[in-house]
Amino acid sequence: MLIIMGLNSPRQDIDRVKQKIISLNCMPHEIPGSSKLAIGITGPTHLFKEEDFQIMHSVQEVVRVTKKFKLVSRQMKSEDTIIDFGGHSIGGKELCIIAGPCSVENREQTFEIAGQLKEMGINFFRAGAYKPRSSPYTFQGLKEKGLEILSDVKSKLGLKIVTEVMNSQSLPGVCEVADIIQIGARNMQNYSLIEEIGAAQKPVLLKRGMSATVEDLLLSAEYIAAQNNYNIILCERGIRTFETATRNTLDLNAVPVIKQWSHLPVIVDPSHGVGIWDKVSPMALAAIACGADGLMIEVHHDPENALSDGAQSLTPKKFKELLNKINELAPIVNKELKFYETTNSL
Amino acid sequence: MLIIMGLNSPRQDIDRVKQKIISLNCMPHEIPGSSKLAIGITGPTHLFKEEDFQIMHSVQEVVRVTKKFKLVSRQMKSEDTIIDFGGHSIGGKELCIIAGPCSVENREQTFEIAGQLKEMGINFFRAGAYKPRSSPYTFQGLKEKGLEILSDVKSKLGLKIVTEVMNSQSLPGVCEVADIIQIGARNMQNYSLIEEIGAAQKPVLLKRGMSATVEDLLLSAEYIAAQNNYNIILCERGIRTFETATRNTLDLNAVPVIKQWSHLPVIVDPSHGVGIWDKVSPMALAAIACGADGLMIEVHHDPENALSDGAQSLTPKKFKELLNKINELAPIVNKELKFYETTNSL
Amino acid sequence: MLIIMGLNSPRQDIDRVKQKIISLNCMPHEIPGSSKLAIGITGPTHLFKEEDFQIMHSVQEVVRVTKKFKLVSRQMKSEDTIIDFGGHSIGGKELCIIAGPCSVENREQTFEIAGQLKEMGINFFRAGAYKPRSSPYTFQGLKEKGLEILSDVKSKLGLKIVTEVMNSQSLPGVCEVADIIQIGARNMQNYSLIEEIGAAQKPVLLKRGMSATVEDLLLSAEYIAAQNNYNIILCERGIRTFETATRNTLDLNAVPVIKQWSHLPVIVDPSHGVGIWDKVSPMALAAIACGADGLMIEVHHDPENALSDGAQSLTPKKFKELLNKINELAPIVNKELKFYETTNSL
Amino acid sequence: MLIIMGLNSPRQDIDRVKQKIISLNCMPHEIPGSSKLAIGITGPTHLFKEEDFQIMHSVQEVVRVTKKFKLVSRQMKSEDTIIDFGGHSIGGKELCIIAGPCSVENREQTFEIAGQLKEMGINFFRAGAYKPRSSPYTFQGLKEKGLEILSDVKSKLGLKIVTEVMNSQSLPGVCEVADIIQIGARNMQNYSLIEEIGAAQKPVLLKRGMSATVEDLLLSAEYIAAQNNYNIILCERGIRTFETATRNTLDLNAVPVIKQWSHLPVIVDPSHGVGIWDKVSPMALAAIACGADGLMIEVHHDPENALSDGAQSLTPKKFKELLNKINELAPIVNKELKFYETTNSL
Repeated sequence: MLIIMGLNSPRQDIDRVKQKIISLNCMPHEIPGSSKLAIGITGPTHLFKEEDFQIMHSVQEVVRVTKKFKLVSRQMKSEDTIIDFGGHSIGGKELCIIAGPCSVENREQTFEIAGQLKEMGINFFRAGAYKPRSSPYTFQGLKEKGLEILSDVKSKLGLKIVTEVMNSQSLPGVCEVADIIQIGARNMQNYSLIEEIGAAQKPVLLKRGMSATVEDLLLSAEYIAAQNNYNIILCERGIRTFETATRNTLDLNAVPVIKQWSHLPVIVDPSHGVGIWDKVSPMALAAIACGADGLMIEVHHDPENALSDGAQSLTPKKFKELLNKINELAPIVNKELKFYETTNSL
Repeated sequence: MLIIMGLNSPRQDIDRVKQKIISLNCMPHEIPGSSKLAIGITGPTHLFKEEDFQIMHSVQEVVRVTKKFKLVSRQMKSEDTIIDFGGHSIGGKELCIIAGPCSVENREQTFEIAGQLKEMGINFFRAGAYKPRSSPYTFQGLKEKGLEILSDVKSKLGLKIVTEVMNSQSLPGVCEVADIIQIGARNMQNYSLIEEIGAAQKPVLLKRGMSATVEDLLLSAEYIAAQNNYNIILCERGIRTFETATRNTLDLNAVPVIKQWSHLPVIVDPSHGVGIWDKVSPMALAAIACGADGLMIEVHHDPENALSDGAQSLTPKKFKELLNKINELAPIVNKELKFYETTNSL
Repeated sequence: MLIIMGLNSPRQDIDRVKQKIISLNCMPHEIPGSSKLAIGITGPTHLFKEEDFQIMHSVQEVVRVTKKFKLVSRQMKSEDTIIDFGGHSIGGKELCIIAGPCSVENREQTFEIAGQLKEMGINFFRAGAYKPRSSPYTFQGLKEKGLEILSDVKSKLGLKIVTEVMNSQSLPGVCEVADIIQIGARNMQNYSLIEEIGAAQKPVLLKRGMSATVEDLLLSAEYIAAQNNYNIILCERGIRTFETATRNTLDLNAVPVIKQWSHLPVIVDPSHGVGIWDKVSPMALAAIACGADGLMIEVHHDPENALSDGAQSLTPKKFKELLNKINELAPIVNKELKFYETTNSL
Repeated sequence: MLIIMGLNSPRQDIDRVKQKIISLNCMPHEIPGSSKLAIGITGPTHLFKEEDFQIMHSVQEVVRVTKKFKLVSRQMKSEDTIIDFGGHSIGGKELCIIAGPCSVENREQTFEIAGQLKEMGINFFRAGAYKPRSSPYTFQGLKEKGLEILSDVKSKLGLKIVTEVMNSQSLPGVCEVADIIQIGARNMQNYSLIEEIGAAQKPVLLKRGMSATVEDLLLSAEYIAAQNNYNIILCERGIRTFETATRNTLDLNAVPVIKQWSHLPVIVDPSHGVGIWDKVSPMALAAIACGADGLMIEVHHDPENALSDGAQSLTPKKFKELLNKINELAPIVNKELKFYETTNSL
């Protein structure tokens, strides 16, 4: 349920509404908006009488939220959520491009790739220090050593860091380095971890699980929002189907569905979504064309010798060609590749 | 296996190669190409010795085809197949847009929609006279009466007709009216029907089955090509997965995979692929962005009262807005909406 | 909708009810029952007033059928449908075991296997004369020649024949030989063919399509029942999922679901369901344990040299061991292997 | 890779083999067997020369393991793993039946159900104190309070406790109470948690993830075995497919596949596998019939008022009827319901 109040409602009116909610054993959540103040209510709201709130001071409207997810639903907040990163943002007109290797393999490899991406104007650098792998006998990431390298990339190149966390033990270390904390597909329903990450109050990139419906994904996002952390970026990365020609089946249908059901930004990871490097660029363009707020793409300067995901990584050269195409495509869907003009037009 | 010969090889050299193939209990297939003459071989080729052909006159090369599908594979023919429709073509630079209602409901409805599409410059009109429906108690199409109406649309408006055939009994009637014969998703593995349609030597639109892999789709196309009919248009229209938010899961990954594996044109049907009208346009743009050769889209002037598929049909107005977007997008992927400029720019 | 009348209602009362139904543009279907006479109604029944029928002579009850499928639903007929084959039946207490090779390969192979099965007491022999194959270059069956061999098996060994039909052209020939006409998984939604087969008034074995839900399967069965042919045997044979360890995913959940939703018998084909011979017997036992009315199993005396499906075929010896187990299991689920005692206990 | 040595090989021969393995940067794992001593090797074994080991004292054979999973593979250990629980065991001839409510709801409910199960002879009691739920607004379990109740059930009724752990914070508490630690389907690829649980050296019940292949499941088990913990029970509980008639699609094919690929015991959870109470018993019988080592079943004395999973819970009465059937079925597949005779035959 949702209480809509005027944006400049007196604090005492707001507090009275929130106290009433608490007195009914529910939780109030102030939800940021540009023209209205909304107070989301979670908990056993089925017993609420809407009239009890409608008569309160400054209350304009009382709305029932029909979806199972509440705080992240479009009903709760009709405007798009835009997450600000000081000069760059995710979820608005600006397309967000997150790029980098699957894993931090060593200092040279990481700086080599980060340096080339920086030159292209990329602001968000992805690379895994902790790698969830289906076999215990494959490369599991450099762990703390990897975080150190990412920390240096951040301080020396000024790139924002997107990196995955696998457990609570390493969460404090990841929080120190990461600008955006990634939750991998395999942990999308690891609710304990998601809650902890949500409580860390850092922006979160939540990847869709391999067999998660869009509703499941939004319910997992709801766990984060319930910690009063609305800085959530959803990521479509392919689901499991019977098709074996590609690593996963990229479900781009999910993009317009999510944009309708939720106010949160949604990006697409075509690298995992198709899993074959020469099909990554077409799928990246398709993602932008159907309304994604950005992309997450694996880039490696030497894919054949990559310790993980080499088969789906673009070389910096191919990635640059893709950026050129995205830059042409963006205005057709009312987006822009903000960094591009200044950096690449010369 | 594939024998590559010079384009101007003497007929007697070609015939000698074909006779040798037949003498080994296999079938030769001359495959059209612009710079080389290729002779595809199907049958028990595992016993062939490549040397036996390499020494023959005019033979330039002998190539093993490693895929299960042969004649439709990119290995057999490296150039894109372009199907000519007198002034318009499918598979080349020109984007093909097939539009119309799900079903022929009556004369007025059909002419109303066809007329509006004609005005927009659309050349290919789709509408079903025979409708395969999962329940025997829902509208099954106007059948022969529907074909008559389509025949009138063809003669009066000059539109090319794309319509589905469900069985051999109605094939002659459909062949008379249709410029492109559609094989529906439910009949993609109805090999008897596919072979008959292939033998009819008309262009065929083959829709992917709900649980067909890309390989399955190309093997079904192979049945048609084996009738020496190469005028095959493949159509991705969504597969069945666990996701229930949309009618099907549109597998756009299939587009670049098919373009790599086969020389045949591939189009996308976002109407069935997502199944919800307000998500059709984003998915149509995505299809073009990832390299599709065209689209098949359901358009109805009164979706709420459509006898079938109303929920996924665009109004002519929405469809026109989509065409505008496609026209902007096309050049970015080296395509063009050929009919558009003359008709719509005024 | 369903009109329940007394079993001995006067013919004129029954006819009056049927005439009223027809006058309302619907179709009446007399449905056999042991204690009541039911008249199923299909067509636009949403406008019917139940009172109009309740007041008619001999009418006891008027029931709305809530499922999309009507005639095949348990609501229409609460008793199990038992199909009689003169001495043997399918759908009752007796377990039905259909066995034989995937294909008729030649006279010797067919009689070799049929002879061994006959000795074990098997009554229903399966073997394909027409084979739908995903590739046009693999063995497509002996066709008419295969039917001739099956006809001889029938006359010489007295086995009942179960064989697949792929198109209407070959339907008359198949009807002459077959005691049960099989509709393969790939043709489960080939509604034209299904209707024709239904109209042939022979017992039909309808296999579930690879991506068909149980509801889809029952809707396809409804096409047959709508031809007033209720001799339909449903067959679960595995669906397509992401799992690649087995050929298909045998969905045994479907067995109790179908038994609840429909009065039709359901059997299971574990050969296609798992696709690996040494896992066929455990899955066959599982099928009986969860309530299936029988099994359809591929048996070949020389699996390594079978022209199709050798990998999933049991040898006669292994099949005999399975029969022993089934015979032990049957009474636990209130079934019996009727032929077994006399033939095999010595 | 695997080194097979005589069971009574001198300790110094064994140690020499292990030292050689370590010197090559790999890990040796002594694997318990009744007739041979096997030393599994994990790590970069591709450079090993088999001859180097074949010439060592007491070494009988060197075997390459071809599957991605090693320690849990049947190649590593041909005998079935039997886990002993003092009087009862899992993985041998004895069928293991784990029963209880989805969640610990309160003391009364838990003791009510546990008491009734105890009377039937059940030894393993399941009930969740920590509940992973897709929505943050549904019942999340009693947590520590739930563990206390389970601890009392254990001490007062002498039942062995099977309960889920969701994170490392609660692992020590769960370890104190649980005889078998359950890893839920949603955490099957939470490798950090799995490793920690493996290291706790308690028996583990590992449920298959909703989109996990059998290979994925065995690779997750490998993470546990790599901690030298071989007391792992695998659990099939249904996968996600397009079918919506049931909660999940129970993949019983997985049972014979796992029995062939791995030496670990496998049980089946038909409650989640089908999700509808009146179909749980048939699917339970099917699971035993195809070779499962046991069952995990939800039982609740008041399903309509259960706080979770009521729709799929059996009443104690229905569960008792199922036990009767299982007792009849067990000998047919060479199993026994050991507890049953003494307790239930009177």
